[in-house]
Amino acid sequence: MDRIRVGIVGASGYSGTACARILAAHPRAAIAFATSDKWAGDIVRARLGAPIDPGLVFVPNREAIDRAGSIDAVFLATPAETSMQLAPAFLDRHVSVIDLSGAFRLPSADLYPRWYGHAHSAPTLLARAHYGLPELFGPPRFGADGTALVANPGCYPTATTLALGPLVRAGLVESDGIIVDAKSGVSGAGRQAREEYSFVELERDVRAYKLLAHQHTPEIGRSLGRLVDDGEEGEEGEEAPLRVTFTPHLIPVARGILATCYARPVEGTSSEELRAALVDAYAGAPFVRVVDPAHVTLNATTGTNDCVVGAICDDDVAIVTASIDNLIKGAAGQAVQNLNLLYGLPESAGLDRLTRHAC
Amino acid sequence: MDRIRVGIVGASGYSGTACARILAAHPRAAIAFATSDKWAGDIVRARLGAPIDPGLVFVPNREAIDRAGSIDAVFLATPAETSMQLAPAFLDRHVSVIDLSGAFRLPSADLYPRWYGHAHSAPTLLARAHYGLPELFGPPRFGADGTALVANPGCYPTATTLALGPLVRAGLVESDGIIVDAKSGVSGAGRQAREEYSFVELERDVRAYKLLAHQHTPEIGRSLGRLVDDGEEGEEGEEAPLRVTFTPHLIPVARGILATCYARPVEGTSSEELRAALVDAYAGAPFVRVVDPAHVTLNATTGTNDCVVGAICDDDVAIVTASIDNLIKGAAGQAVQNLNLLYGLPESAGLDRLTRHAC
Amino acid sequence: MDRIRVGIVGASGYSGTACARILAAHPRAAIAFATSDKWAGDIVRARLGAPIDPGLVFVPNREAIDRAGSIDAVFLATPAETSMQLAPAFLDRHVSVIDLSGAFRLPSADLYPRWYGHAHSAPTLLARAHYGLPELFGPPRFGADGTALVANPGCYPTATTLALGPLVRAGLVESDGIIVDAKSGVSGAGRQAREEYSFVELERDVRAYKLLAHQHTPEIGRSLGRLVDDGEEGEEGEEAPLRVTFTPHLIPVARGILATCYARPVEGTSSEELRAALVDAYAGAPFVRVVDPAHVTLNATTGTNDCVVGAICDDDVAIVTASIDNLIKGAAGQAVQNLNLLYGLPESAGLDRLTRHAC
Amino acid sequence: MDRIRVGIVGASGYSGTACARILAAHPRAAIAFATSDKWAGDIVRARLGAPIDPGLVFVPNREAIDRAGSIDAVFLATPAETSMQLAPAFLDRHVSVIDLSGAFRLPSADLYPRWYGHAHSAPTLLARAHYGLPELFGPPRFGADGTALVANPGCYPTATTLALGPLVRAGLVESDGIIVDAKSGVSGAGRQAREEYSFVELERDVRAYKLLAHQHTPEIGRSLGRLVDDGEEGEEGEEAPLRVTFTPHLIPVARGILATCYARPVEGTSSEELRAALVDAYAGAPFVRVVDPAHVTLNATTGTNDCVVGAICDDDVAIVTASIDNLIKGAAGQAVQNLNLLYGLPESAGLDRLTRHAC
Repeated sequence: MDRIRVGIVGASGYSGTACARILAAHPRAAIAFATSDKWAGDIVRARLGAPIDPGLVFVPNREAIDRAGSIDAVFLATPAETSMQLAPAFLDRHVSVIDLSGAFRLPSADLYPRWYGHAHSAPTLLARAHYGLPELFGPPRFGADGTALVANPGCYPTATTLALGPLVRAGLVESDGIIVDAKSGVSGAGRQAREEYSFVELERDVRAYKLLAHQHTPEIGRSLGRLVDDGEEGEEGEEAPLRVTFTPHLIPVARGILATCYARPVEGTSSEELRAALVDAYAGAPFVRVVDPAHVTLNATTGTNDCVVGAICDDDVAIVTASIDNLIKGAAGQAVQNLNLLYGLPESAGLDRLTRHAC
Repeated sequence: MDRIRVGIVGASGYSGTACARILAAHPRAAIAFATSDKWAGDIVRARLGAPIDPGLVFVPNREAIDRAGSIDAVFLATPAETSMQLAPAFLDRHVSVIDLSGAFRLPSADLYPRWYGHAHSAPTLLARAHYGLPELFGPPRFGADGTALVANPGCYPTATTLALGPLVRAGLVESDGIIVDAKSGVSGAGRQAREEYSFVELERDVRAYKLLAHQHTPEIGRSLGRLVDDGEEGEEGEEAPLRVTFTPHLIPVARGILATCYARPVEGTSSEELRAALVDAYAGAPFVRVVDPAHVTLNATTGTNDCVVGAICDDDVAIVTASIDNLIKGAAGQAVQNLNLLYGLPESAGLDRLTRHAC
Repeated sequence: MDRIRVGIVGASGYSGTACARILAAHPRAAIAFATSDKWAGDIVRARLGAPIDPGLVFVPNREAIDRAGSIDAVFLATPAETSMQLAPAFLDRHVSVIDLSGAFRLPSADLYPRWYGHAHSAPTLLARAHYGLPELFGPPRFGADGTALVANPGCYPTATTLALGPLVRAGLVESDGIIVDAKSGVSGAGRQAREEYSFVELERDVRAYKLLAHQHTPEIGRSLGRLVDDGEEGEEGEEAPLRVTFTPHLIPVARGILATCYARPVEGTSSEELRAALVDAYAGAPFVRVVDPAHVTLNATTGTNDCVVGAICDDDVAIVTASIDNLIKGAAGQAVQNLNLLYGLPESAGLDRLTRHAC
Repeated sequence: MDRIRVGIVGASGYSGTACARILAAHPRAAIAFATSDKWAGDIVRARLGAPIDPGLVFVPNREAIDRAGSIDAVFLATPAETSMQLAPAFLDRHVSVIDLSGAFRLPSADLYPRWYGHAHSAPTLLARAHYGLPELFGPPRFGADGTALVANPGCYPTATTLALGPLVRAGLVESDGIIVDAKSGVSGAGRQAREEYSFVELERDVRAYKLLAHQHTPEIGRSLGRLVDDGEEGEEGEEAPLRVTFTPHLIPVARGILATCYARPVEGTSSEELRAALVDAYAGAPFVRVVDPAHVTLNATTGTNDCVVGAICDDDVAIVTASIDNLIKGAAGQAVQNLNLLYGLPESAGLDRLTRHAC
């Protein structure tokens, strides 16, 4: 079979670079172009150290659309505001879009000014976008026009929804009063040339940030809300989003997210039932492993597309933890997983050889 | 005035070493002896790099009691089981005890088998012990026999109670459903010669541990419970402890605790009221600063006896964060603060010259 | 073609684990057994998170020899003293041996008591062993009996010899007065359950260790000595080893070696000539890249089998730096590279999909 | 006695901040003003967390000279080019200058274009400046006009000269062929808002930088050159600087320098003689300790004004290592030490209570 031709827009950000590295080694995809204003003109292979056509050179971002004709699918590793512009342009040119920004993750354009700081410039696409957390919302599919728009989930929502989703869906925990306390490595903030992200400032530091204000809050509320009740992916827009308290923390490591999630168990729920619900939910999922909560660690997943989850409860509280690599399962790896599913490839193509970073 | 003569038992553990370093530079205390089986015979000054009598040599732990006659007060930096043995022996010899273990922090001997794994061998002392968090429970005082027993708080309870205590006391948050998600540096586990605490294993790792089972859980519940209702320190044993969910996490830094605390605000409570309650509670406290929650960071306190706290809320949740150095405000520094208060010295004697570790 | 059947002895050490992870994903090798006393009975797949036969279980070290009949080649990730025992036993059973210890790296049994602290129990094998740094000493080959014994180089000698070897061979630097100042991540010391290797003790620390006494010193001297003069691999034992000053340092990172090497340039030598000699030496080497010395960083190689080298000089000194991952190119990766070459596979089989650890 | 009134110019850089923190707690100095364009208008106490007049506010850099009348001495924590402008202006106003930049460290204005990238605008002051490494070059003294100009040494030259100086002076090592391989924490580069100094880029990375081109090279050569021969501080400009190879490395820690120095020992020199020469040189020095080279670690000094040194040799090479905190003994602490000596205060005033950062 021919390789799927892909483009990457924004390939010099951490997520874009991670996409490019994974796709360069993908057995069934071929990178037709990668854009970056910062690295425009540089040889991709030299920058990434990836096994890729040595003739491939980064092109400026503005040339992305001009190259739509050369590809089947595009990965947008761009800010939400840019993705809103690019996605319809690529779709119009019959290119499927896997968007790594938040541009198409929320149900309504009304939410964008508050959470993203700007209006939505392509609101009609929101209903069409598939939320690309395949373990809980199924694989993306081509539309009638032969293209797909995948809203690749955010890093925090990925960890959180994989942790809590099956329990919400199974009705084992109450859907109100959920608290998510998440710890993230610094790469989650993207490439930074700011003093506050300098090594000296962040070494040995830990802090909560964007309290009650992080843009992933409504995304988590929506994804969990869709899972309430019947366990089925309902019609878009039907389910009420959950009100979730979400507090992200910055931790002095480069990569990884640990999400510690708290919910009230439905009366009589046991730790065994929580675990069974997780095991059942992920029985066919190649990347999610259910383990003892004491084994849910960053080192268990960093460098891979894996997620490990664990749960425990007493009468008052259920605690569910999940660990992912924010740049892989929380961004680029999941994007490639969605590409694989969209094209009917093995779900783990290009993802099963990623090596752990821990010794 | 003569210097207060002190002894330190268990001076080679991290807390004991921190005690010795602070006391060595204390303007009004003099170290009469320091015990350590590991360093027995070694020169204290050489081990600690502290400005102390160069003739002082570590003595074995078993010699501690024999030297009771040479001191006014002793710091027990020993396991709870050892402190239960030593505290009555020192008190009998008219030596005041500042115990850094959990031996005298819980209200009832019944709690020890479950949380500490062994029975309490000196249960009659529990009622006598003063819980040494002076900002909320006042200074320790000598008893009729001229001695005092201070139960120096645990590191997690110190951060948590300083964060939530004033809000519980002021009735601004509900006393049930409190969740504490705490992040601690590795020194909290003490000196370790175990593979799982080796540099390679812990570098870049984050994990929750002892979920629903950490021994500081009942201590937090008790200290917050005492503050409920009237804002006064009531009679010992009267107040019901709060049921608190406490989840500690290990973070790859040597020192520091960040506690992120979640409670339901009483209807109508604003962030400003939370902040005002904290400011009011700590108006005369030299070591606690109320700041914006975004400025509650480990680097703000590491190396010092300071605590920074911050709070924010919406209709559903109040979030209060606190940062301390687990070995100083969470152990040795607070122990010296209690010594100062007990002897009527300035509260910050020996503690106001500690230098921050951040640049 | 059938897969090469391999065994791994000592699979729970960091090098052994790295071997197992790489071999588990190797397209042409199959792990028949892996030994570990520590993990005996555990499922290999669960411990390593590697895509390996889920039925494979760690067996005790003592069973290694009994399983010789099931394999073509064995990786010994064992202490030198153990390798001296195991290597002849496997060779006798027609199993090729790739030994990751220092047991077969030195030219003479006389050197072992001083540098390794014990006598050599299999001295007759020293002359037979191939020093497995293929970029400079060629591929290993089967002997007349159909087996091979590969002495896989040490981590420091790998970095140092790749840096200086081509310059020594080309006669661009003097062979006396060479100084190697190397910086290594902590995993180089192996799995440790000692306080001095605990996270708290090593965080933010840097130190030199084993000054003038590290066991890799004679290995470096020998490998460089073999390259002096004619640029050819001479007869074993002919070349005099170089006297090299080697100072290793411990750096607070888990993985990686940076070797900074100093030599006196032959009069008139330019930086361009140094660079040209390196480029020429590694023209056909898939894993070694010649870069500007400012780009020789740990992050350029960590997680991969790559080595980056760079050189600069003035009239008085030539400085050559090299970076490798100590567990991969410095141990397990190079061992697999030697396996590939021995069996005529592509040199990078199983090694070209290792992912960088830096973002 | 009245307090010495001091000003700090450039108090928001890491060295300037360290100066301000130390001086705020100094028993005999009083900060009259601190300048910073970045923090102009902010309360000094709030920014530094130091026990300082709460009314003190940062003033813009341009106001520094206007405030000369309020101080006895000024600390210039400014770039060399700025110090060249400010030093003569303060001296003209009868204010002694302790300059932390390289502006007055080299013997000749001719050297500045090459090493600092600009001409020297105050060349006549070079002969007057005292190189402030008091352990080897004596205390600074007031000139006939009642002022002094102290060129406070660079961080690398401090560590290197304290390591090698006594051995050069004692004639135990050859003065040619010296190689200095130094490892520095990231704060040595100053506050940075550049991507290359971001946490994610530098975590776990190590690299050599400015090979054969670092501006501290001629400073090291000069300070060692002055010590050759007679062990006396000769007339300025008489001694030939040594040709030293100096290679700095960046290490992923915030603070600290470890300098590993290599020299050829004079025939017959023993490790004991090296050690004796160091012990003799530092017999009266409160901040320098001679230890076994294996105990020369960053953690031994970080947070303090201490330097630890150790030496070992064989027939071919002498290795001397030294560790300092680059911001304290390598900058602000040494500057205060020079202030103390200039004013006849105890050498360690304000410096003996600095607390170690290691546990």
